[in-house]
Amino acid sequence: MQRYKVTLAYNGAAYHGWQTQRKGRSVQEEVEIVLTTIHKEEIEVVASGRTDSKVHAMGQVMHFDSSIDMDVQGIQKAMNALLPTSIRVRQVEKVDANFHARFDATSKRYEYYLSKEPHNPFVQDFMGKVDRALAITAMQEAATVFVGEHDFTSFTSSKIDERKSRTKTIFTCTVEEDAKSYHFVLEGTGFLRYMVRMIVQTLIEVGKGNLTVEEVKTMLYAKCKHACKYKADPQGLYLVEVHYEGKE
Amino acid sequence: MQRYKVTLAYNGAAYHGWQTQRKGRSVQEEVEIVLTTIHKEEIEVVASGRTDSKVHAMGQVMHFDSSIDMDVQGIQKAMNALLPTSIRVRQVEKVDANFHARFDATSKRYEYYLSKEPHNPFVQDFMGKVDRALAITAMQEAATVFVGEHDFTSFTSSKIDERKSRTKTIFTCTVEEDAKSYHFVLEGTGFLRYMVRMIVQTLIEVGKGNLTVEEVKTMLYAKCKHACKYKADPQGLYLVEVHYEGKE
Repeated sequence: MQRYKVTLAYNGAAYHGWQTQRKGRSVQEEVEIVLTTIHKEEIEVVASGRTDSKVHAMGQVMHFDSSIDMDVQGIQKAMNALLPTSIRVRQVEKVDANFHARFDATSKRYEYYLSKEPHNPFVQDFMGKVDRALAITAMQEAATVFVGEHDFTSFTSSKIDERKSRTKTIFTCTVEEDAKSYHFVLEGTGFLRYMVRMIVQTLIEVGKGNLTVEEVKTMLYAKCKHACKYKADPQGLYLVEVHYEGKE
Repeated sequence: MQRYKVTLAYNGAAYHGWQTQRKGRSVQEEVEIVLTTIHKEEIEVVASGRTDSKVHAMGQVMHFDSSIDMDVQGIQKAMNALLPTSIRVRQVEKVDANFHARFDATSKRYEYYLSKEPHNPFVQDFMGKVDRALAITAMQEAATVFVGEHDFTSFTSSKIDERKSRTKTIFTCTVEEDAKSYHFVLEGTGFLRYMVRMIVQTLIEVGKGNLTVEEVKTMLYAKCKHACKYKADPQGLYLVEVHYEGKE
């Protein structure tokens, strides 16, 4: 038995997220069908975490166990030949049997693209959109509020498991703009459900003048699951990298 | 009665081309349904030319006649509110009753994007793809063969109307590359059916070493509808601009 670590890119537009659901196609399902076909026995995969419906990945990581000792290039080629073109295997690596894609992840990097061109028909599935200029300096100031170790209860789904810790450390939270878009980068030890999208939309509201930096601080420090009612559209969000420090 | 000139951008991925077909959705059909809804009477539109299934437009131009004298901004807003997000109205202008989107077009600009990343799941609908490096200098030399006035019988569908002229003038035919793609630009007085895609694929074959510049000249000068068997994938092609010199 050999454990493999797989790095995937996927265009989330056509999928109901990573995790297999009762309704709609999931990325996990597509990957498991392909691995089951290759192995002629049922294969289950474990990802670093879920991604929501319509969210994309440049570098999702998952692991699976295989009883056939295959060459990593061979696995990559076979998977890409059978997968839909909207899901691509970027890398396959042999790892120790105790490597775990979810539990061993030490940090993740998400990026969010917000288009300034609401009528551009080519970005509808790939960016959020905004129809007016945002106050970039105010957004950048508000972004720093999230950096550091915080209890992010205010910035997650109100339906989460109360027994689990909601304390996470954010290393990077930045916003930049170019002629056609705003670009958000968030890096941290981990992210709760909806956390990136709720932080991004809160920053957008600051940029629109609907929230002050002080109000963002109040929301974060409230540690209250009803404090933030904002959530950015999923199609602008990309899971870019998952790191496994000490295991890479 | 007022004639309007409309500039459209569309993501061709979901459409069977510009022109209404028996099978599948067309861009023309979507636009006519919306204008008919706005006018409460049947409206027909005339475009600068067809685009093939899956081909995109940044600046397709069409005209239509309206018996309700509307503000151009009002028409643009109403159309964009009713059209699918994959079709966007970029501009509406009032024009003379004798303006004709097809007959008055004096030149067109097409661009073609060819991805060097065959496994990038985000470009599948938006670029052609190639899995090896192309000889850029040879492609650039071959591109110059097409510049000037030529009979392009060799570079069009074998099913075209024999009575129509196949002589066109190409002003610009260039290829550039960056880290992730090759980018082709073609400008000319007009383009026959499949002409841009056949020229682009011929240049790609030169880049792969399958054709020499001399062989490209022989193909062009043959003026034979069976001389070129190459045609690039439609999803990399964009109709970028249509010009109406003296009418703009």
